[in-house]
Amino acid sequence: MLRNLLDPTDLTVGEIDEIMERALDIIAHREKYADACRGKKLATLFYEPSTRTRLSFTAAMMELGGNVLGFSDAANSSVSKGETVADTARVISCFADIIAMRHFKEGAPLVAAQYATIPVINAGDGGHSHPTQTMTDLLTIRREIGHFDHITVGLCGDLKFGRTVHSLIKALGRYEGVKFVLIAPDELRLPDYIKKDVCDAHGLEYEEVSTLEEAMPQLDVLYMTRVQQERFDDRAEYERLKDSFILDAAKMALGKRDMIVLHPLPRVNEIAQEVDDDPRAAYFRQVENGKFVRMSLIYTLLKWKEEGRTAEPDGHTHVEGPKCRHTRCISSIEPVKPLYIKGEDGRCRCLYCETEMEE
Amino acid sequence: MLRNLLDPTDLTVGEIDEIMERALDIIAHREKYADACRGKKLATLFYEPSTRTRLSFTAAMMELGGNVLGFSDAANSSVSKGETVADTARVISCFADIIAMRHFKEGAPLVAAQYATIPVINAGDGGHSHPTQTMTDLLTIRREIGHFDHITVGLCGDLKFGRTVHSLIKALGRYEGVKFVLIAPDELRLPDYIKKDVCDAHGLEYEEVSTLEEAMPQLDVLYMTRVQQERFDDRAEYERLKDSFILDAAKMALGKRDMIVLHPLPRVNEIAQEVDDDPRAAYFRQVENGKFVRMSLIYTLLKWKEEGRTAEPDGHTHVEGPKCRHTRCISSIEPVKPLYIKGEDGRCRCLYCETEMEE
Amino acid sequence: MLRNLLDPTDLTVGEIDEIMERALDIIAHREKYADACRGKKLATLFYEPSTRTRLSFTAAMMELGGNVLGFSDAANSSVSKGETVADTARVISCFADIIAMRHFKEGAPLVAAQYATIPVINAGDGGHSHPTQTMTDLLTIRREIGHFDHITVGLCGDLKFGRTVHSLIKALGRYEGVKFVLIAPDELRLPDYIKKDVCDAHGLEYEEVSTLEEAMPQLDVLYMTRVQQERFDDRAEYERLKDSFILDAAKMALGKRDMIVLHPLPRVNEIAQEVDDDPRAAYFRQVENGKFVRMSLIYTLLKWKEEGRTAEPDGHTHVEGPKCRHTRCISSIEPVKPLYIKGEDGRCRCLYCETEMEE
Repeated sequence: MLRNLLDPTDLTVGEIDEIMERALDIIAHREKYADACRGKKLATLFYEPSTRTRLSFTAAMMELGGNVLGFSDAANSSVSKGETVADTARVISCFADIIAMRHFKEGAPLVAAQYATIPVINAGDGGHSHPTQTMTDLLTIRREIGHFDHITVGLCGDLKFGRTVHSLIKALGRYEGVKFVLIAPDELRLPDYIKKDVCDAHGLEYEEVSTLEEAMPQLDVLYMTRVQQERFDDRAEYERLKDSFILDAAKMALGKRDMIVLHPLPRVNEIAQEVDDDPRAAYFRQVENGKFVRMSLIYTLLKWKEEGRTAEPDGHTHVEGPKCRHTRCISSIEPVKPLYIKGEDGRCRCLYCETEMEE
Repeated sequence: MLRNLLDPTDLTVGEIDEIMERALDIIAHREKYADACRGKKLATLFYEPSTRTRLSFTAAMMELGGNVLGFSDAANSSVSKGETVADTARVISCFADIIAMRHFKEGAPLVAAQYATIPVINAGDGGHSHPTQTMTDLLTIRREIGHFDHITVGLCGDLKFGRTVHSLIKALGRYEGVKFVLIAPDELRLPDYIKKDVCDAHGLEYEEVSTLEEAMPQLDVLYMTRVQQERFDDRAEYERLKDSFILDAAKMALGKRDMIVLHPLPRVNEIAQEVDDDPRAAYFRQVENGKFVRMSLIYTLLKWKEEGRTAEPDGHTHVEGPKCRHTRCISSIEPVKPLYIKGEDGRCRCLYCETEMEE
Repeated sequence: MLRNLLDPTDLTVGEIDEIMERALDIIAHREKYADACRGKKLATLFYEPSTRTRLSFTAAMMELGGNVLGFSDAANSSVSKGETVADTARVISCFADIIAMRHFKEGAPLVAAQYATIPVINAGDGGHSHPTQTMTDLLTIRREIGHFDHITVGLCGDLKFGRTVHSLIKALGRYEGVKFVLIAPDELRLPDYIKKDVCDAHGLEYEEVSTLEEAMPQLDVLYMTRVQQERFDDRAEYERLKDSFILDAAKMALGKRDMIVLHPLPRVNEIAQEVDDDPRAAYFRQVENGKFVRMSLIYTLLKWKEEGRTAEPDGHTHVEGPKCRHTRCISSIEPVKPLYIKGEDGRCRCLYCETEMEE
């Protein structure tokens, strides 16, 4: 298989460094890259709308001198005629040089990568993975703080469903001396399996607090997230929780002078508008970093393809099993082989969506 | 604030002349501008669909050698996740060099301009303003008639709700000796406040007639407008009125040999197809002028930004007041500061949608 | 009228050869064409969604160095405001250099061509015509088999409604010694008028069989088609028929070693996935040929326009008649002149949709 970016863990620490360094080089020497992808095409295959992410990829490719084609909504695509992601990936490989795919089903970009003959970037697959957001977060920390080691990172809001939070923990957990402060209401606490499989497994220090005030003084980075209505079955519970854990000027006054505030955006009201003018509010600078890191990624994956670099087997044992039970798994709509990754603890997780196999 | 184009009155007569002259230069020397915006990006943020206007902006930017990104419908945008226009403006400023915004809420482009770090062009905000249409109309008169002074302009159709008509009156009212002939059914007559605030205030001559036949012989310009179904609550009233004031070959026979017919398009049936072949029918030439004037505008606003030119304060007193009562005002969906402009007569109009403040 | 491509029969055999040869030249010398359309714009006017066809045109224009603008769905276009195809064609002529139009009404691209001042390519009009698909099929046969003469072509699936099948028969019927094997369930057999007007009129040999197994051994080309749900009024009948005539590895084993399988795509399940790896499966190579033939077409039509080449009158007598009765004819929504082409047998067919005139 070609080198793709389906999950942040597809990249080694060394490769992440390479992509960060190239992003910094792009920022420093814009003109050097203005024609880097001249004659190349990015296909933005967005099966669900996500304007910000789509336009970030689009701007990135355009600033590399390349072209962009695609769709912004499955309703306007052949999908309604029942085409599989596998066939679409093969077809788009005839039209473009690299794919950015957003899909409401988890694992769809992996299926695309299995059939495409061009690199695939996962631009978000359901609640599963959103690696370019994680790369964006990393580049912002790199530019604002200067390093990933020995920092204290507060994570606030929806830690239960927030995939960007889970990915950031996994990504930062590879560095030395990172401490997490988890700030969430009881209903939205970080799931136990992440605490166990990621934090405990990597010896990461973490602390759970129930208010922003407690956390602020020790943070180098505060990562705010939106409490998404889509994640709640019960609207009343959403209404009760959505205003918890709002960041305002008073809470900012408790923070260090050189700390930074990140947010994957869009925000609703979890950060008061009055915070925007605080120089520590880095979330709009983060948006621009998202463009730069995507420029670096597109450039790098196309370069790797040219060099013939392929993905190593992931070292995991793949076992066949029953059809995955998860309703948001790509296997629920596409006839994929039901494969599972067998962990060291003997538990099997779906290759596509990482849901544990039903007993 | 940067120089934007939110309302035709944002530009002085001298600046309008500058943009007209540049449009004429673009028409005369296309190749000179073919790379004028190389490496620049226009964001077309269309919160409601408007194919013609969007494609006109798109073609304009492409003919300047630039790129275009954006969305054509709010349904496919992050808006559905509750992002404010203010935040979207900040985010898009990281992706593009200039914004063209169409919005169903009045004043939305003004809010965007307050937060964007790149110039904003209003591509139509509800029933409020549509300045690039007005610039298109002016360029067409300039090219077809040669001057704006001392012309008689017939305005036919929906003079009550038609924003393009209101804007054209304001824009032409700045020139010498312009006379308007108002041709509309009783239900769709020009509102009193425009007669008073614009025509009377600037000493403009106008005459109201009730048939096209009466008006035709004296006109240099006939500006036809569509009677839009969207503007009527009562479908029966729409059906009764829509066929009034239809221009056909018989009526054209009453007009001067060198008069011209304009229409902002799309037309439904207010101009019979038989008129299309009359050399005085300028409405399809007007479409092409729309592209040229948008090329000139994009070019000019980017140039002004580079030169550091900013907008002068508008000289009006801004006063705080209650939340605007107008349901189509951007303040109805976005938490903007409720500001009003105090006129010389002491009346206060909403900064965003120009609706008068409730007593 | 300019040279357009509205129906495959708009092109002479010599012109088809010219376009095929240029496509082969493009494939052999990509860099020679990389700037061939620099500064030109293609308008993709898709009144109904068709991702594959739209992206194929888009990729084609981009690989010629040109730009692309347009819409992908009528819901996002001015159409909802009641604009005619005729007016849209005139307007788009101000914004672009060539049009690719997909429309749910038959004859819409012909109406567009009557009013546009730039070439129009029909990208599919209802069940009527889809000439770029036919050109794609021809280029694939040309590249895979080497010639069009003396081949045996199996046509399988929906031969009743399948416009690509009808067009391919007409196109191949102009060459020497082509034999067709028709493989379809009773309900979806090739219509009598095609057998009579095309096959019998041109002395084409054909044979009807009721299973794929019977046909396989003699075929040089097997053209598979999808049994489209949209074509059935009765869902139960669709369910019963859709799995008939599925191509799998066992049936492939009966075919010649150098035969090829084509499919216009998207497929649902009429070709089992196991066939994809068979080197005779040419349907994904066909997708790429679609891009190349569209590059050739865009290039050639723009060249012909530059040379001032116009379309010869079609030699048929046009007669006026009653409004066409066909509900999918463009005349059902647009005020076109009700014209009919009088055939040699005295029967009159609608100029727009080819439906026979009502007695």
